[in-house]
Amino acid sequence: MSIGVKEQALAARVAAQQLAEMDTAARNSLLEAIAASIAAAQDSILAANAQDMAAAQERGISGAMLDRLRLDSKRVQDMVLGMRTVIALPDPVGQVTRREQRPNGLLIERVRVPLGLIAMIYEARPNVTADAAALCLKAGNAVILRGGSEAQQSNRAIAQAIGEGLEACGVPAAAVSVLADTRRESMIELLQLTDIVDLAIPRGGEGLIRFVAEHARVPLIKHYKGVCHLFVDASADPELALRLLIDGKTTRPGVCNALETLLVHEAAAAQFLPAAAAALHARGVEMRGCERSRAIVAGLAPASEDDYAAEFLDLVIAVCVVADVEEAIAHIRRYGSDHTEVIATRDEGNARRFTQALRSAVIMINASSRFSDGGELGLGAEIGISTTRLHAYGPMGAESLTIERYVVRGEGQVRHPA
Amino acid sequence: MSIGVKEQALAARVAAQQLAEMDTAARNSLLEAIAASIAAAQDSILAANAQDMAAAQERGISGAMLDRLRLDSKRVQDMVLGMRTVIALPDPVGQVTRREQRPNGLLIERVRVPLGLIAMIYEARPNVTADAAALCLKAGNAVILRGGSEAQQSNRAIAQAIGEGLEACGVPAAAVSVLADTRRESMIELLQLTDIVDLAIPRGGEGLIRFVAEHARVPLIKHYKGVCHLFVDASADPELALRLLIDGKTTRPGVCNALETLLVHEAAAAQFLPAAAAALHARGVEMRGCERSRAIVAGLAPASEDDYAAEFLDLVIAVCVVADVEEAIAHIRRYGSDHTEVIATRDEGNARRFTQALRSAVIMINASSRFSDGGELGLGAEIGISTTRLHAYGPMGAESLTIERYVVRGEGQVRHPA
Repeated sequence: MSIGVKEQALAARVAAQQLAEMDTAARNSLLEAIAASIAAAQDSILAANAQDMAAAQERGISGAMLDRLRLDSKRVQDMVLGMRTVIALPDPVGQVTRREQRPNGLLIERVRVPLGLIAMIYEARPNVTADAAALCLKAGNAVILRGGSEAQQSNRAIAQAIGEGLEACGVPAAAVSVLADTRRESMIELLQLTDIVDLAIPRGGEGLIRFVAEHARVPLIKHYKGVCHLFVDASADPELALRLLIDGKTTRPGVCNALETLLVHEAAAAQFLPAAAAALHARGVEMRGCERSRAIVAGLAPASEDDYAAEFLDLVIAVCVVADVEEAIAHIRRYGSDHTEVIATRDEGNARRFTQALRSAVIMINASSRFSDGGELGLGAEIGISTTRLHAYGPMGAESLTIERYVVRGEGQVRHPA
Repeated sequence: MSIGVKEQALAARVAAQQLAEMDTAARNSLLEAIAASIAAAQDSILAANAQDMAAAQERGISGAMLDRLRLDSKRVQDMVLGMRTVIALPDPVGQVTRREQRPNGLLIERVRVPLGLIAMIYEARPNVTADAAALCLKAGNAVILRGGSEAQQSNRAIAQAIGEGLEACGVPAAAVSVLADTRRESMIELLQLTDIVDLAIPRGGEGLIRFVAEHARVPLIKHYKGVCHLFVDASADPELALRLLIDGKTTRPGVCNALETLLVHEAAAAQFLPAAAAALHARGVEMRGCERSRAIVAGLAPASEDDYAAEFLDLVIAVCVVADVEEAIAHIRRYGSDHTEVIATRDEGNARRFTQALRSAVIMINASSRFSDGGELGLGAEIGISTTRLHAYGPMGAESLTIERYVVRGEGQVRHPA
């Protein structure tokens, strides 16, 4: 019989209080102890992962999913390096973001404090276990991790190593724990502990996010799909646009900042589409197009409504010829997922219009969608890319795991003097 | 048959898009037109309010609730003045909060954009209808207002005037609307429109907040109760502490930033409590105390567990003598509501400890809890005081109705150059 979900969360919350009271140096020492502990536990982590891999293969899991589950010594080293990257980041906790003296003499400060206890719900990717723990601890938060059940042994081994690092520094292992009870009912219970869990972060595929959103009663920041668009304007430099297309679609098609749809201005289509089709074909990408694009590129399969809404996560791209920037905007509003949109243009007015009209988290002007990433955008590390339009929108780093509150200093001021 | 909830929300969302694309001057002109329209509609607003008042009195409603429902020409003028205050505030939309050039030449900007469509759920306070509309519009958001049914006629008359102002500026009246269907089922439907409503803000009593939290599937920022504490440290200036106590408890006991519990250091209790009791008694405040306070102040009623957790919203205060700042912190952690806590002290270490150990939205050092208010803390106006530890915590102004997103400019940069 495993520990109850509520008991586990209450223990984590007590630990969160201790973390919130530690200073920058103490929290960084803690992360260093954990990094060392993970490095030392490499053999047991790999042994646990081998069990997960064997069970997954027995269940017929293969391809990208199996690859995400797999650990090797390089990947364990990457976890350790990732943790040291996080140590080197500026500490968001205690940052004074604003300071104002009021006419009555009150000194108002806005100060960043940790959120408290975070529940991280994700798929079978053991490296997320270490990465998420590092960022949560950096920002002074406790975390309960609930990864995909296929990675259960790996996650436990990693959490065990993290726990040893925590305890070596006098912090309860409950500060970072894997949800002990692996049943779905327990995840639901965790997501409904409204006075204990401050934030749940689901990160993964559509099914997982919908399940969490349906059941959660605690605040939620979704890390949902990326149906990212590239719009090639009439004024675009065709070579630049082609570079963005190839980088966006082919360098890592399985991630959320990969391109899924290409929109081409009708004035550019006759020149751009054949070149794009040749370049994509040479890289094994299947194109599916609208009627007008099929009239330009011979042998193109037709794109369905579903194709325009799809996050393929694969070497497939939907194509649509549009009359102008307004039609591109309308297409993205209809089919987009508010993640990342790219415009290739030399027309400053169209760039401005595209930026202003779309509400996506990240707008790229003449830059690849693949830069929509915490590291690339200067956050140092990310816990994911939020598609929830509240608190954090787009790549989320350590700062997004804190909240600004008010600290006010006076000398006895009252609102209604006697 | 009134318009369906989903249709109303979809129309509001279309209007939100238009608001988001307006510039500062256009949005301020819009607010000015609405202010003029409300001023012109004063007679019809007061006539509608008279209907609500008559119905409420018939149903036996009285006291503070009836007072909150009541409008007069002064209160309508205050709505108009409030709107002009909002016009004068800085525009949060389009603010560039950070700008960074990456080593690869990418220019990263964080830019504030509106949240989108906000659902405001509140009690029978018609002035909130105008105030909330003004702040939502200022930040480029559409809003659907769902006030207490007792204020239904008043809210409709105010929304009618707002709609006329909107339409005079070419903005659909759907940008600000009162939920047409007044049944509870419709409120629930509104709270579950996850792909349409960006944020719900419930503001009011415990029952309302719990109802909304139970049913909402859209993101939520709660504006919940304030069980605010004053801790009088051993080192406190007794006159200063007494001033904070009187201001916090007696100047407006029915609001959420009023004091509900007084904690006194045992070394200060023998001197402070009799003076406090006399001052409070003279102002009609009932004190309920712990055993140790009852030994000092004769005739004090005992405080129960419920009293320590209560938001009295009335001339009642719970009192507890504590051994030191740690015991005060433990008391507040146990009974507090994360709203506002005050310490009266001359000991900088105790002030620091109190601030660091408590996770409340606002910490006041030697200042009255009654300053926990958007206007007093420099926001110009507030839509409420968030007790949700996400996105906004404490007084929430126009800026809290926006979100930072990323706008990235490049010259064709790709993540993996060929």
